[in-house]
Order: sequence, then structure tokens, then C-alpha cells
Amino acid sequence: MIRVGVNGYGTIGKRVADAVAAQPDMELVGVTKTSPDYGAEAALRHGYDLYAAIDDRAAAFEDAGLGVAGTLRDLLDAVDVIVDCAPAGIGERNRATYEAHDTPAIYQGGEDAAIADDSFNARASGEIGDVDSLRVVSCNTTGLSRLLAPLDEAYGVEKARVTLVRRGGDPSETDRGPINDVVPDPKTVPSHHGPDVNTILPDVDVDTAALKAPVTGMHTHSVNVTLERKPTTAEVRELLRAETRLFLIPEGAGIDGAGALKDYAADVGRPRSDLWENCVWEESISVEGRDLYLFQNVHQEADVVPENVDAIRELVTDTSRAESLARTNEALGVGLGSLLSDDGTARDQVAADD
Amino acid sequence: MIRVGVNGYGTIGKRVADAVAAQPDMELVGVTKTSPDYGAEAALRHGYDLYAAIDDRAAAFEDAGLGVAGTLRDLLDAVDVIVDCAPAGIGERNRATYEAHDTPAIYQGGEDAAIADDSFNARASGEIGDVDSLRVVSCNTTGLSRLLAPLDEAYGVEKARVTLVRRGGDPSETDRGPINDVVPDPKTVPSHHGPDVNTILPDVDVDTAALKAPVTGMHTHSVNVTLERKPTTAEVRELLRAETRLFLIPEGAGIDGAGALKDYAADVGRPRSDLWENCVWEESISVEGRDLYLFQNVHQEADVVPENVDAIRELVTDTSRAESLARTNEALGVGLGSLLSDDGTARDQVAADD
Repeated sequence: MIRVGVNGYGTIGKRVADAVAAQPDMELVGVTKTSPDYGAEAALRHGYDLYAAIDDRAAAFEDAGLGVAGTLRDLLDAVDVIVDCAPAGIGERNRATYEAHDTPAIYQGGEDAAIADDSFNARASGEIGDVDSLRVVSCNTTGLSRLLAPLDEAYGVEKARVTLVRRGGDPSETDRGPINDVVPDPKTVPSHHGPDVNTILPDVDVDTAALKAPVTGMHTHSVNVTLERKPTTAEVRELLRAETRLFLIPEGAGIDGAGALKDYAADVGRPRSDLWENCVWEESISVEGRDLYLFQNVHQEADVVPENVDAIRELVTDTSRAESLARTNEALGVGLGSLLSDDGTARDQVAADD
Repeated sequence: MIRVGVNGYGTIGKRVADAVAAQPDMELVGVTKTSPDYGAEAALRHGYDLYAAIDDRAAAFEDAGLGVAGTLRDLLDAVDVIVDCAPAGIGERNRATYEAHDTPAIYQGGEDAAIADDSFNARASGEIGDVDSLRVVSCNTTGLSRLLAPLDEAYGVEKARVTLVRRGGDPSETDRGPINDVVPDPKTVPSHHGPDVNTILPDVDVDTAALKAPVTGMHTHSVNVTLERKPTTAEVRELLRAETRLFLIPEGAGIDGAGALKDYAADVGRPRSDLWENCVWEESISVEGRDLYLFQNVHQEADVVPENVDAIRELVTDTSRAESLARTNEALGVGLGSLLSDDGTARDQVAADD
């Protein structure tokens, strides 16, 4: 059993904790919080041991009636690997602590690539050597890497150009904007997202331009990929449909935005209405000459969650990449099919469930 | 076993169906849909028998690969009670069909009060005689009735004045507005919501003014109640805390809006992040002279769900109101407590779960 700790039980951390707890080969030793709020209460409700992220705050938890099992240092001593889910930039401050405890660490994509020995995406990363730390790339980079890897393998990517219409904040972040604008962010083009994709796919030529919109549900990508070969639209749809971490939104489903996508996730029983897969609008997939176009949505709270699970195995076991992907998908139920899609995957599944 | 059908498997219908299926004394015979979209697929995934709401549409379901068990008429013949969850105004059109089949019917609050023999709220309705139909009042009226009933019983309500800041549409309704305004809706004051409360509490004097805001998560009520007697703030908090379908958001929880409330609902394991209870901001509860003030949030997709379950028992059994409320709360898990609140309910519950 791999003993795992999660430092920071927030938007990503609570999801990673649940995903780790669902793996047969992992044990969630505990999670940390900086303050005794509803998130800390949630950890206890889930039966997870709670640790104070900051040494001198342990008393505040006890005062609020929430028992803690210790502090971050105690957690680090008890685990094989720590998953840092602190807010962007705090991971860099935590690094020295992890290194002082000789604890292998996984960081999130909000940190600079230099924080870890390598960056990671389960589908698209090449072979990773003997490293002490990994950085799971951001939700947007994860979404782009999953899409570009199969396209590059099948047809060759000559050049990818992507406009990222990003959500302004998460649903609970009442202090984020914009509230009535679409803002270039960053204003410089290309944005940093393209180079971040190159930490995973170094040979894929990709430029990105990023905006922020007044929505909280998901990011939306408008994708153009000039391919080296010239597949048909149908061939690309089949190629993408075969990827377990891509979901092709069926044409007839009546799903017209992030709201309906989340509704669909709840309908299929997903915890927190989470969408771990890229959601690609099937009707949008279109090939004109060698130019492929499509829209995809990425759930910023969720798509990196299975990647973190695979990063844990990559870092501290010799499990193969394919084996880890399969185990993670199986344990979580990653891989959305629809009754209404052409391949009938979900139709068969419903029949089997009956 | 009470055999129940749900006509219209949309935002309310899918939730009512799940709630009915969770009751030990009820059997969900089937649900209807007008078209074979992702909602119809969801019904099949849940193992519910699917019926075509419109006779000549059955073939469209078969064409989409979704098997149907029959049409609405077949469903009506097989049930003791039908719960109409069609969009507002369609219930009125459905009424003749239900009456032709002699099927007792429950309607939603989007219909005129005249559609049914009586209107219903499980906490606040007076005794209901021998009726063939009930109308569960709207989400806003439900939220107000639950709040005003205990206040009237304990202190007497001289006059209630409420501003309703309503959500513009549900999360999946991409065609609703406003997107950048707060609009008086209706422009006339008082609005129709006060008289609707009087279908439940005929003797409570209440005026309402309604606005619509560019949000999809919840309605927010700014409440003033001039009381006949003069309780302390602490007494009102204790009174409201004792109500199973009110949730007092604890001061220290760090919950600052509908986004965090939904997050909290997901944390405690609620399906679809549903909040069946009125969510009353504990810090806002304040008594000045005989004037009580508070803010409460109402989840428009969810708060009427337990009320529909109780309405079914009210309509077709002689179960007492108190017994039905207790059964519904138990089967669904209605009644949120927090580790962080004064009474320690949830703290005890977590201890018991361990």
C-alpha cells in the first residue's frame, strides 16, 4: 500500500483525497487544513485524519471542536508521498519542508515547472526517469496535452493554435472576476500555456491566447490544429472517441453548455458533478483541408484529479503507465460514454447494469 | 406500497423521482420525457422505466436507442398518484388527462393555485381535507412558509416584508437572463409571492418585492418580520435551529455565498449538491425592537423535493403529517447540522458514524 498525504484540503485537495482513498493500492493517511472551516469539517465527515498545515494553528482546530491528529510534519513522517494541493505559489514555500523530511512530493500546475524534477500527464508524458518530485500540469495544460498527444501520434501536428476562454474563478470564489467582461489574461500573446504544454510534449508546436470570462463552471478551448496528414472528420471523431479521458458530447444529447454538462455528470452519479474527462463538442470536430477545428470544455476543479493518482504511482512505484491509467480509470469510473453516441458503449453498460 | 409516477423528468422531476425511489413505502413506477435527450438517458441509467410524455413521440425514443415502456396514459393506469413536474403552465394542460384516468395528482408551484384542490407545505399547511389533488407551492413560497410558520407560532407575526433576489435561471438554462442587471420582476409591488404564502398561511400578513439577478445557484431572501412579542436574537436562533428543514449556516464555517453552500452540500455527500433546507445565515439573524431581520438562501432546484414526497402521503394515505415528515427526512437525510455550530448535532453524528 502506498501511504499518501494531501497537503491542502481545498478545491483540488479534497478531490485528490477522495480519489486516493478509492484506489485499492493506496492508503490516505491524512489531509491538512490551515483553518477550521467547513472544509476541515468535511475532512472529518469523510473519516479522514486531519492535520494542521501550520504548526501553531493546531489549537485553533481544537477550539472549534475539530480534533487534529498532528501537524504537517507528523503527516510527512507517516507517508511515502505527499501531494501538495496548496494554492498556487505556496507549493514553492512548502518544498523545503518536504525535502527536509525526505518525502517525495507531487505539486500542482499553479507552480513553476522548475519546482519539480519533471512535469507530468499520464496520457502524454514521455518516459520519466528516477525523480523525487513531479508536477501535475494545470487543468488547461492537462486538457491540451490529452488532446494533442493522440492527434500528433496519428496524423502529426504541424502547428496548434488555441484560444482559451477561461473561467474567472471557482464556484465558491466570491472575490474573483471579471463579473461583466471578457478580459485578455495575460494580454501578451502567445500565453504561457503553450510552453507549459511543451513540458509534456516538447516537440509539438503550439501557440495559445488566453482570455478570462465571467463564468465559474469550466474552461472552454477553441482549438485549431494544422495536421501533417489529412484525415476525414469521421476519422478524427473515432480517434478521439477511443481516448478514455476524452468525452465526446453526443450531438443529440441536448447538452449546450457547462451547466448541462455538470447536470449530466450529476445524472451519471459523479461525485461533486465532476468531469474528469475533456468534454469535446462532437458537432464541432471538423476538418477543412489539413486544419482541424473543435471546441472542448475542461472542468478546472476535476480534470487533474486522475492525473494526480497516476503521478503518485509514477513517483513511488514501478507500475507501468498503462497499468496505472487502467487502475485509476477503473477505481474512479473515468470514461464517459453516452447512450446517445454512435458507439453504444454506455448503452451496453446500462444493459449490463440492469 | 404507494405506486408513484413522475410526469416530466427535468430539473424537479429527476429529483422527485430519486426521492420517491428512496422511500421505503413508495414504488417509482416510471417517469416521462418529451424527447430522447441526456435526461432520458439518465432515467434509464437510474434503472427507471421511461414513458413517452406525448403519444406520437414514442418512436423518436426508439430511434435514439432508448427503450420506452409506454406512454403517459400507460403510466397513469399503473400508478396510485402522478406527480406533475412539467414546466410551469403545462400542468394545467395535463390536468384533464389525469382526471380522465381518475389519477390523483400533485402539481408544482409554477401552476396557478386554482389547479388543485389545495396548496401544500409539509411544515406550514393546516389540516387538509379529502382532496384529489395538491399543489406543492414554489421554491420561494416553500422557503417563506417554513420560516414564517415557526415565527408565527412562537411570537406572532404582525407583518412580514421580504425582498426576494431571485436567480435568473437554473444552471443548465442558457437561454435565461438577465446577464448583467438586477431587474424588478414583477415591477409591481407587492409581488404575487405574498398571496402565494397565504395559500399556506392564510392569516399571516406578508408583502413581498421580487428582483431577478444574474445568478443560477440559489434565491436569496432579505427578510424583515415585525413580531407581536419581542424575543432575543439568541431565542430566535434557537427556535430556527430546531426546525429540521432550516439550516443555520454557522458563523465560523467560512461559507460566504451560494457557491460555498453548494460546495458544502457536496462535502456532506448530497446528491447533485442539493440543499433541501432553507439556508439561513446565522450571523444575519438579528432582533431590533420587535423587528427581526435575516438573510436566507433557497435552492430552487431542491427545496420542494421533500415537500413533494410528503404531499404524496398527504394525498393518498392517512399517514400523519409529523410521521410523513419524519419518514421523508430519515429516508433522504434532510437536516443539516454542522460541527461548527453551537448545538453539536453534527459533531455527535460524526462521532456516531466513526
